[in-house]
Amino acid sequence: MGIAVSSLEEACRLFEVLLGETSSPPEVLEAQGVRIAFVGAVELLEPLSSETTIGRFLERRGPGLHHFAYRTDDIESELARLEAQGIELIDRVPRPGANGHLVAFLHPSSTQGVLIELIQHSR
Amino acid sequence: MGIAVSSLEEACRLFEVLLGETSSPPEVLEAQGVRIAFVGAVELLEPLSSETTIGRFLERRGPGLHHFAYRTDDIESELARLEAQGIELIDRVPRPGANGHLVAFLHPSSTQGVLIELIQHSR
Repeated sequence: MGIAVSSLEEACRLFEVLLGETSSPPEVLEAQGVRIAFVGAVELLEPLSSETTIGRFLERRGPGLHHFAYRTDDIESELARLEAQGIELIDRVPRPGANGHLVAFLHPSSTQGVLIELIQHSR
Repeated sequence: MGIAVSSLEEACRLFEVLLGETSSPPEVLEAQGVRIAFVGAVELLEPLSSETTIGRFLERRGPGLHHFAYRTDDIESELARLEAQGIELIDRVPRPGANGHLVAFLHPSSTQGVLIELIQHSR
């Protein structure tokens, strides 16, 4: 679960209370324009500026649920499988995400309005 | 994860492809105005009419991520704990949800815009 937030520190405190887990140290992902931290399975995303994807999302809709992520062992064959099933890809080629993992997004237009992220963990 | 959809059958087919799991048989929750099914950890919610919570959500924002759910062993003490931490509750008393589980929602105004559902599984 990715959640767009305006203050990473406030959001971390909140989700630590909710989930009873400690947040990971914040990490800046320059290429994606975000500063992130994890609390359990929840990824909190704070925009680096209003000109980023998450910055525009916050301006349009306010903080809230942004995307749904699931893990795959082989992201390239999973992308090929989904594309063959008619699902539109945002990333045809995986790119680096948090923690050095590989990630790729599916387009919400073919997934019931849900932005979906595939994650292949680094070894 | 709860996802609001306009067609439960289409959404089930899609998430079966995405997650490689079989959907549960659809279930009608009259009190909540929805017909639902699960594909893995994803709950798909189709409104019974446009006058329901999910019906209004669909009209306002279209299909997409609706709420985030997590499981607790003792929903009443969890609600008391969260309220003591200053989190606003929609349900002060748990109510019946899918599969006969007890559920309660937290108010998005105190949870970074995210509608959060607590679930206590029936034994």
